[in-house]
Amino acid sequence: MKEIKKEFSQLGEKVLTDIEKKENPYIEIPIRGLSNIIFDKKTRQLSLGNKTSKRYYFNVAHSKKFMQTLMVASFSKHLIDEGIHTSIRDMYYNLKRTFPESNENTFDEQTESDPIIVDLEVAMDVLREQLHLTTDRKGIVAGNVVIIDRGDSIDWSKLGSGGWSIPSTVDEIDFKSVDADYVLVVEKNAGFERLHEDKFWQKNKCILIGTGGQPSRGCRLLIQRLNGEHKLPVYVMTDSDSYGFYIYSVIKFGSMGLAHVSDRISTPEVKFLGLTVSDIFEYDLKKATIKAKDVDIKRAKELLKYEWFQKPRWQKEINLMIEKGIKAEIEALSHRGLKFMSEQYLPEKIKKKDFLD
Amino acid sequence: MKEIKKEFSQLGEKVLTDIEKKENPYIEIPIRGLSNIIFDKKTRQLSLGNKTSKRYYFNVAHSKKFMQTLMVASFSKHLIDEGIHTSIRDMYYNLKRTFPESNENTFDEQTESDPIIVDLEVAMDVLREQLHLTTDRKGIVAGNVVIIDRGDSIDWSKLGSGGWSIPSTVDEIDFKSVDADYVLVVEKNAGFERLHEDKFWQKNKCILIGTGGQPSRGCRLLIQRLNGEHKLPVYVMTDSDSYGFYIYSVIKFGSMGLAHVSDRISTPEVKFLGLTVSDIFEYDLKKATIKAKDVDIKRAKELLKYEWFQKPRWQKEINLMIEKGIKAEIEALSHRGLKFMSEQYLPEKIKKKDFLD
Repeated sequence: MKEIKKEFSQLGEKVLTDIEKKENPYIEIPIRGLSNIIFDKKTRQLSLGNKTSKRYYFNVAHSKKFMQTLMVASFSKHLIDEGIHTSIRDMYYNLKRTFPESNENTFDEQTESDPIIVDLEVAMDVLREQLHLTTDRKGIVAGNVVIIDRGDSIDWSKLGSGGWSIPSTVDEIDFKSVDADYVLVVEKNAGFERLHEDKFWQKNKCILIGTGGQPSRGCRLLIQRLNGEHKLPVYVMTDSDSYGFYIYSVIKFGSMGLAHVSDRISTPEVKFLGLTVSDIFEYDLKKATIKAKDVDIKRAKELLKYEWFQKPRWQKEINLMIEKGIKAEIEALSHRGLKFMSEQYLPEKIKKKDFLD
Repeated sequence: MKEIKKEFSQLGEKVLTDIEKKENPYIEIPIRGLSNIIFDKKTRQLSLGNKTSKRYYFNVAHSKKFMQTLMVASFSKHLIDEGIHTSIRDMYYNLKRTFPESNENTFDEQTESDPIIVDLEVAMDVLREQLHLTTDRKGIVAGNVVIIDRGDSIDWSKLGSGGWSIPSTVDEIDFKSVDADYVLVVEKNAGFERLHEDKFWQKNKCILIGTGGQPSRGCRLLIQRLNGEHKLPVYVMTDSDSYGFYIYSVIKFGSMGLAHVSDRISTPEVKFLGLTVSDIFEYDLKKATIKAKDVDIKRAKELLKYEWFQKPRWQKEINLMIEKGIKAEIEALSHRGLKFMSEQYLPEKIKKKDFLD
């Protein structure tokens, strides 16, 4: 918490000094456009380059944004001082007001306040979560883990069929004990429920995370913490389609839209477990496949070109999908029996270390 | 569990008897079309009328569906016998197969197997959840409640910022202790998180449920159980728009699509707390409203005609929305301060019992 307060002080003092020196106050913000997004081959993550822009107070084109930036910074500092969190939508409503004797609003739409938050994230090099601004929560977790969260001791192994609902901010939870050999991330809630009911995490000593589609920031941060702080390998299971492969790639490398926080919410060490397109043939799932649509094939052709998919096995899998024109969901494994996933497919894959990187 | 096994026996024995008597076996299924959906003025719920149809084995138009019905029944009986649950998508993949030496499949698409589940629900007068078939989970809960679920004792007051993730099936959980004066249902996750952080449920002795949009079946069942078994009043808070009002109406009266289970998953006693359109003026939120779109106005005009909205206050509120052409989200309350909802708006409304019925 100290660090972020220091960042705010620096931001404020810089502006104040400019004013006292009778100079034009400005805030320096790294550029987030495509021209400044790079794939860092060393860290294997999408990240921002070195280009920055300056936002001036005395500049007709910048002035309103300059004010908005300081308003959001002041709002966030207030949240931190008070120890409360709020959604970015609540922030918009809270900050929206009309200047006296005018028709001019501080913010007209949320599309004006959202990018300012990202400006601050990159300018101060912090996470939105540290600014106490929350995004929508999604995702569930179960396993032999005890955490401390807001003073409560929570045992992820004793939450019945429900599991622990992953909040939008997990950077404030403390891990009391973590007893697991690896983390299994499943794209589908149905897959999570099936594995949870079969006590997969108990029998196989792992932590089970269900993301319910593209993982939330809270989910991604949790995965990173389990990997980074507890040295647990992470295996990702998605549908065998372009969208599933992309989910894996976002968890691992980050995304274009959030390139500025890749190093803090993505996990380069995660491995892709399945479903691969080869699995469809290996495990006799052909009867449970779906014909790929044009949009699937188009997206697959795009993935083929991504720098981080330039590996022989990924090229083979994506090309196989295009060639066969099929895709398959995690649920396709049920074609071989309802417990096939928990009792055969997953243990086999993990034993053989049959992963894509 | 006994009852449902009895229902299965009756279904099977009926078909067997028909065969033994050399009669054309059939299954009788209540009709679910609009022509057979009524609003029961006594129970104030949408429900099915008395019309039924017969599905025959020896009838070219019925034969495949007859087989599919028995396949799904047999699959569900197997789930119950084994004590496992699965998603309706998994079921589809599991039952899909090709008849030997033909191109004919048992099921071609999930759109064929889904309605068969509903057929069985209505024919046997049971819930999908009792058939051990799950739908997607959604929703979170917190409060002074201890439940027993799959042998775990879970305290909803000790789950940190996360809350308990409501599973798709809650009919098997047992309530060990419930210490609350009422249930507050909030449409938005952001609203849930704000109230949860402010310890609203603790300070106001209530159970807080976040539905994350239109509530899942699991959520609706949980609301009904808390109201029915523990005699707790339930207050629903949604956005002030047609979609929000409809969410309330689904929790209370049921929906057309699920009219056959209204009596088991809806809660006629719930009351609407807000946001009303009048609240916008009462609480000075005009600056935080959104212009209603044509589709909002069109939907509002439809709601005006619904039998269950034929009450003076509802007519007034809906007409006010149409007249002013505005709508407001729960987050609009943040315009008055981040704790305005938990410290002023909600306590005031609840104290004054200012509800719509």
